[in-house]
This record gives sequence, C-alpha cells and structure tokens, in this order.
Amino acid sequence: MIGGGQLAQMMALAAMPLGLRVHALDPAVDACAGDVAPLEVAAFDDLAALHRFSDVCDVITFDFENVSAPALAELAALRPVRPNPLSLATAQDRAAEKALFARIGTAVAPFAVIDSREQIEAAASSVTFPAILKTRRFGYDGKGQINVPEAAALADACTRLGNAPCVLESRVRFQRELSIVAVRGLDGQMLCYPLVENLHVDGILSATLAPARVSDTMVAAARLCAERVAEALDYVGVFAIEFFDLNGVLVANEMAPRVHNSGHWSIEGAVTSQFENHMRAVTGLPLGDTAAVGVSCMLNWIGEMPDRAAALSVPGLHWHDYGKSARAGRKVGHATVTAADRQTLVDRLVLLAEKLERHAQIEPVLERLRAPH
Amino acid sequence: MIGGGQLAQMMALAAMPLGLRVHALDPAVDACAGDVAPLEVAAFDDLAALHRFSDVCDVITFDFENVSAPALAELAALRPVRPNPLSLATAQDRAAEKALFARIGTAVAPFAVIDSREQIEAAASSVTFPAILKTRRFGYDGKGQINVPEAAALADACTRLGNAPCVLESRVRFQRELSIVAVRGLDGQMLCYPLVENLHVDGILSATLAPARVSDTMVAAARLCAERVAEALDYVGVFAIEFFDLNGVLVANEMAPRVHNSGHWSIEGAVTSQFENHMRAVTGLPLGDTAAVGVSCMLNWIGEMPDRAAALSVPGLHWHDYGKSARAGRKVGHATVTAADRQTLVDRLVLLAEKLERHAQIEPVLERLRAPH
Repeated sequence: MIGGGQLAQMMALAAMPLGLRVHALDPAVDACAGDVAPLEVAAFDDLAALHRFSDVCDVITFDFENVSAPALAELAALRPVRPNPLSLATAQDRAAEKALFARIGTAVAPFAVIDSREQIEAAASSVTFPAILKTRRFGYDGKGQINVPEAAALADACTRLGNAPCVLESRVRFQRELSIVAVRGLDGQMLCYPLVENLHVDGILSATLAPARVSDTMVAAARLCAERVAEALDYVGVFAIEFFDLNGVLVANEMAPRVHNSGHWSIEGAVTSQFENHMRAVTGLPLGDTAAVGVSCMLNWIGEMPDRAAALSVPGLHWHDYGKSARAGRKVGHATVTAADRQTLVDRLVLLAEKLERHAQIEPVLERLRAPH
Repeated sequence: MIGGGQLAQMMALAAMPLGLRVHALDPAVDACAGDVAPLEVAAFDDLAALHRFSDVCDVITFDFENVSAPALAELAALRPVRPNPLSLATAQDRAAEKALFARIGTAVAPFAVIDSREQIEAAASSVTFPAILKTRRFGYDGKGQINVPEAAALADACTRLGNAPCVLESRVRFQRELSIVAVRGLDGQMLCYPLVENLHVDGILSATLAPARVSDTMVAAARLCAERVAEALDYVGVFAIEFFDLNGVLVANEMAPRVHNSGHWSIEGAVTSQFENHMRAVTGLPLGDTAAVGVSCMLNWIGEMPDRAAALSVPGLHWHDYGKSARAGRKVGHATVTAADRQTLVDRLVLLAEKLERHAQIEPVLERLRAPH
C-alpha cells in the first residue's frame, strides 16, 4: 500500500479478516495506517525503499494517487500494480481525465488546457466565465484551484498558481454534487455502489448522503460512465467519479483512482464496504455485493474529533477515529449514521446535531433530507 | 486484553475505529491478536509481566476466562478489571455458575457437586441417568466432559477426569441449543442480542442461526436471566448464556464471561457487533444497538480454512480468517452469510454448500431453516 493515511488504515482493517495483510509505505513516521499495519517510512520516490518494500508484497496498490511517474514505472516492473499506471497517470492529470470523459461520451464542463502563458488568450476565448483555474496535477480537497470571475483575471490567476500547467473550466451552475464509487475485479467483473450526494464546506467534503435520491436515468448514466472509464483504463480496484447534477443531467467533474471519502458510508451502510472490495479486487478475489442496506449519512470530522461519548449515544451511529493529531483542515475521522428509512435518519441526525452542537454541519444535510426530492 | 486469540483479534479490530487501542498478553508468540495489536508474550500467571503490562493499560479485560485467581487479584489491584473478578470466578466454576442460575430463578438441569470421591455415592443418588460429568473448572468446547450412562459408571468417570472437582448433571433431552449474548455498560445499561440457535459437532460450535425462531416467552425468559445474572455479578462487558430448549422451556447450561462464538454473526448481522459493544462497555462508552439486520448464519471453520475465493463468490458472505495455522479441532476462522430473509439465506447456504463441498456442515443448518418452526 503506497500511502499510509486513513484510507490505507481502513483498507488494512478490511484486509485482515480476508486473510490478507497490508504493508504500508509513507514518508510520515506517524502515518495512521502504522497503527494497524507494518509501516515502511520512506519518500514516495525513494527507489531503494520501493525495491525493499516490493520484496514483501505480492501486489501493490495505493491510498494516494500523487505518486511520481518514475516511481510508478519502477514499481510496475517489480510487482503487479493495481490499479495500473495508466489509470493513475490519467487520474493525476485533469486534462487527460477530461479528455477521457469526453472520449467515452460523458458530459464535461467546457474546458481549455493552459500549459504555458502563450495559451492564456486562446483559453480565455474558448470557455465562458465565471470559470475555475485548476492545476493539472496534485490538486485535492479544493487545493490548487482559483476562481476566475472574468477573462481579464485569468493571467493573474495563472501567475498565482505559479504558471503550473492548468485546466481552465467554465463554472457549472449545478444544483448538487453527486458521486459514484465503483469497483472492477481482476476478471473484469464490474459493480457500482449507489449514487450518493455530497455536501462540501470550503472545498472539503463535509457530508455524504447514501443513496442519493436520483432518477433511474441518472443512475444509468453514472453507471455507464463508470463502466466505460474502467474499460478504457483496464482498471482494477475501486474508483470514484464525481458529478455535478445540472437539472438532472450529470456532468463529470473528476475521478479518483482509489477508495474515496464519499464511499466511507459503505462500511456500515452497504453489504460490502469499498475498502473490502478494493482489497478483493486487487488480490483477484470475487467482488462483494455493493447494495446499500437502509440509508446512511457520513459526516467528516475536520480539524478535531467531536465528543465521542455524546456521539455514540445516538442510535445507529458508527464512529471512526483515525488516530491522527488535531490540525485545522485535516480529516481526523468520520461518523456514519445508519437507519432503516429516511425519517429515522432525520431523527437521528437532529439528535446528533444537538448532542454535538454541530448544527452548522448537520443542518444542510437535514435540508437535503427534508427536500421533497 | 488478557488472551490473544481470535476473540482478542476481533475486539482489537473493533476498538480501532473507536479510537481505542488494544494491547494483548498471551503466552503464545504467534497468538493471532499479535497481527493487529502489540503483543506481550508471557504466561497468564507471570506477575512481573502482568505488572509491566498493566502499566500501558487504562482498563483490563479478557478474551479468555481461565485466568488464575492470584493473577486476577494482582491485576485488579493495579487497574480496573472489567468484567470484575467475581464474574470471572463465578463463570470459571460450573458449581458456582449453576448455583447462581438457581438463585436467580433460572431452570438448570439437576446437578450435584463432586469435590472428592466421598461425594460420588450421594451425587449418584441425587441426579437421574444418563448424566454428564464435567470438571468444575477449565472446560471448553466439550473438553473435560464425560458421558455417564448409569450410576455404576460414575466412579470410573471420576477417575478418568483425574478426580478433579466436578459437577454431575442429568442429561437433558433438549430439542435444540440456544444462546443469548448480552452486554452491560459501566452505568448499568443493559442490552441483549436476539436469541440464536447453535449447532454443535463433536462438542464444538459448528453453526449459529441468528435470530432463532422462538416464542416471545422464550425471549423474555432469556433476557430476564441475562439481566439478573448481570445485576447479581455487577457485570460490565459482553457475556453469553447457553440454554437448552426443552419443549419451549429454557434450561440454562453455562455462561461465558466474554464475547462468544455464538455472537460472531453480529459483526455483519447486527447494528453493532458484540466486539464493539464489549469495547464500548469496558471503556465506559454508551452501548450500541444490538438489533439484528436481516437474518444470518455463522459457520465455524474448524481445523483448516475452506477455499476463500469459492466462498466469496456467494452473495452476502463475509469471510473471517484469523491467520492461525491449520490444526485438527482448532477454530481457524468463520464465515457469516447474511440475507434480508430466510429464503434468501437458504438459497445462499445451498450455493455455499456446493461451492465448498461442505454438505455435512451446512445440511443440518438447512434442515433447521426449512423446519416449519
């Protein structure tokens, strides 16, 4: 497992009962997967360490997509890398990702690539404003993104992003953000979790509602997109695709070539969790049922953990403390509230908001749950 | 955690997301909890090791009830021991256990205590035959038990058990074996899992069906027994009580002062697992919902693990490999098959029996599921 964060930790926990053992590699000596798996402390591009590490592994996977291309090539020569380097390379690059979506027939927002300052003018004339400028690589949780209200502001925005290769996108006036988590097995078997609805605060996921209330048409479109992406990349493992819901039309935003924060609800809210299914897929085992059991709401704990005992007094609440130290903006844990039906979920979230005094985080979720559709 | 077997392993896995960390103590260097928790290798009665060990613990609990009394007393002087030494002492001794059941008004089979050969004659005249002779202490999985078909065979049976202190019990002609897993919090809150039905082979649990199909009267009787046992012992944590079903009347057989094999189904088949609830209870956290979600069948893997990939191709099947080496009679893992209803569970078990060619283990379960009641 390249990367030793909470995703690696939850995969290691899921791997254990399957009779699989995870070894993690991470540059941080206190990487939280180290609590549940042997941890090799090394930089992601330390080739000697990658060699040592691969010696104890049968298959290599990731909890983190920003591994450098040379490191990836080195690893792929030593052991099966799943998902494969092409999948990682595609997902690492917003331009390649958008080109893939467009190629398989999935709607994307109008965009233009800006690899050098010479392309600024052409880009400004090919998208509508307001727009967003995003670095092609290494963006996550809203980092590496700048709003560009009008064409005249673009050159300055490029400067502020250090003239890194970028993608300029028209801002889509979407009603909500949805995502689908999917898994493809070594034999090509493909399963999708239900579409879920995500609520963000300051560019970071705050809450996920699973399943989202969506039309059959939207479900079919999301599944088709996931299937075509997976086939195009010969993907093995779990991945996620984020969509904007534009009056019922799905517009693909980006993909993550790994288990995804919007799939954490599946630990308790689905028959088989995304973490277990990723482990099954990359080791060539049959995939598990991705169906939801009842309805769930996952709430991210950002910065610090709330009061555990207060939260655990709420029925159907499941606690996930990653064992990380508190720090502003850091994902330190999450909770998933499960229920048999939406009204019970509402009641439990109302109770939780009171117990934790977290109305600001939970009220937007309640608004979505109470909306007529 | 005194004891580092699969029960400790599953508790350590459940503790992790709660932000709790388990340290285990076990005499075996390859104790399987060592895969998921720091392991102190020491004899259970190594007082120096227990001292060292307690230094890193806030609270002490067990996956194993046969800890010696002096070790227990030593531990209890150092740290809170939950469940308390009285609970362990009672459950360690079949005579004390039966006396407790009788005191709280729960039916038990006629029994007599044989602490010395002088008591053989009186014991033989106070129970009916056929009977079973069981050592008062250190029995598990059918070990330390001998059938005694008639009074004349009793003296010889005592000899075969090394003249250890024993309990002689009338053999009850029961229809089936049931058990209840219950949990009591530090604040006295008490919750019970549904009554389950257990099938044994050679004295070792082979399968558990959850929930059992039983009358409301039986559920009420089992819960009342569990509540009274817990109150009498001021119990904290998870425990199990095994019953015989004698034409709809529950006769208590024995209790286990720990998480129990007949509660393994709760990992996927209940809202909160017995392992998580034990961790919540002993650390003073609120308890989680013990309700079943659908129906489940837990199958023990004894001696060696079956074919993993074949098993995982069955929908709703959850795999648990404890990472132990294969050995005749050893519990090396289990699987739980979950389903929304009994007919789906039957279909999945039929498929599993074929995939694993394990008809001998699964057919008795199917017979029970297909029985009219």
